[in-house]
Amino acid sequence: MFHQESFTVGTRGRGTSEITGQVARAVRDSGIGRGLCSVFVHHTSASLIVCENADPSVRSDLERYFARLVPDGDPAFRHTAEGPDDMPAHVRSVLTATSLSIPIEGSELDLGTWQGVYLWEHRTDPHRRRITVSVVG
Amino acid sequence: MFHQESFTVGTRGRGTSEITGQVARAVRDSGIGRGLCSVFVHHTSASLIVCENADPSVRSDLERYFARLVPDGDPAFRHTAEGPDDMPAHVRSVLTATSLSIPIEGSELDLGTWQGVYLWEHRTDPHRRRITVSVVG
Amino acid sequence: MFHQESFTVGTRGRGTSEITGQVARAVRDSGIGRGLCSVFVHHTSASLIVCENADPSVRSDLERYFARLVPDGDPAFRHTAEGPDDMPAHVRSVLTATSLSIPIEGSELDLGTWQGVYLWEHRTDPHRRRITVSVVG
Repeated sequence: MFHQESFTVGTRGRGTSEITGQVARAVRDSGIGRGLCSVFVHHTSASLIVCENADPSVRSDLERYFARLVPDGDPAFRHTAEGPDDMPAHVRSVLTATSLSIPIEGSELDLGTWQGVYLWEHRTDPHRRRITVSVVG
Repeated sequence: MFHQESFTVGTRGRGTSEITGQVARAVRDSGIGRGLCSVFVHHTSASLIVCENADPSVRSDLERYFARLVPDGDPAFRHTAEGPDDMPAHVRSVLTATSLSIPIEGSELDLGTWQGVYLWEHRTDPHRRRITVSVVG
Repeated sequence: MFHQESFTVGTRGRGTSEITGQVARAVRDSGIGRGLCSVFVHHTSASLIVCENADPSVRSDLERYFARLVPDGDPAFRHTAEGPDDMPAHVRSVLTATSLSIPIEGSELDLGTWQGVYLWEHRTDPHRRRITVSVVG
């Protein structure tokens, strides 16, 4: 059995948006009870992470850490056509993930207690980001 | 065909534990000869890597590198409730992988000669970590 | 339905090689119209990324960024048997990806407009790198 569907997330600029609910809905839509779910983001300046979902300061700390690790306006970068956050967005995407796979049990995502699935927008401006969920089982 | 099973690894605190054998056993249990195996860790302060499996100094160098890249007790972090290694563990998890996919050939993991699969514990204290292997083929 | 095939890429030393075409060919060979494709590199000193495919300076900036993030000849490293780029290659591999999953639609990779799939050679010398594409649908 195989099922696939896409959805779009409107971001408000740099930061994380929880998409666990949308991914779980696609899994339920699939009618697959036991299987594997793959999540893919169709962009190179936004990415996917599985992250602690209880304390929002984890995600603000992540943001602060990555802002220091991959500074906007870094003079080493030549790809600056779209602004100082352009190339850092591509680097952040490469350092995190474009695709994730999550097991399914009882038609639900079999995530750990503290795991959530997040879209991470790396550009400072808002964007619409397309995500595809594929389910096999 | 689809098969899924989970196992638990008891870690001795920060460091890598090879799980190639446990993953390979789940693949053999599946009875699937040719396929794809997905490995998932149900935690946000431990992660998965495929790493060189011949010289243990590769993994101690990795540890030393990450300790410098994501220092414990970094004053930039506010999520410190569980100690100085709490937030660095989440960052290390995001910089590495929560899920991996590996091809299967002849009911065995089709890894390169020098590839092993490792669970990386990022907390300094020992933990029990759950891992799920999904096999499709 | 399941299909699997491998191919080899000869690299010219450190740098990225686009493999979108080879992966797309394996997908077409599979005869699977709607599904999921997984790409795996059988090495620990080369890795896979999904990256912006329009402006080559994105990939030269990535190279420059990673050369600074994981410097060759770092005195922290003990695994230096194969030279100053040996251990940095393993670190770069762990910071990027050994496996990627991409949805398939109409027998084609359903990539975003600006997404390409790249093999990233992290050693300074040329190597032959084996890649396996698995398709399920």
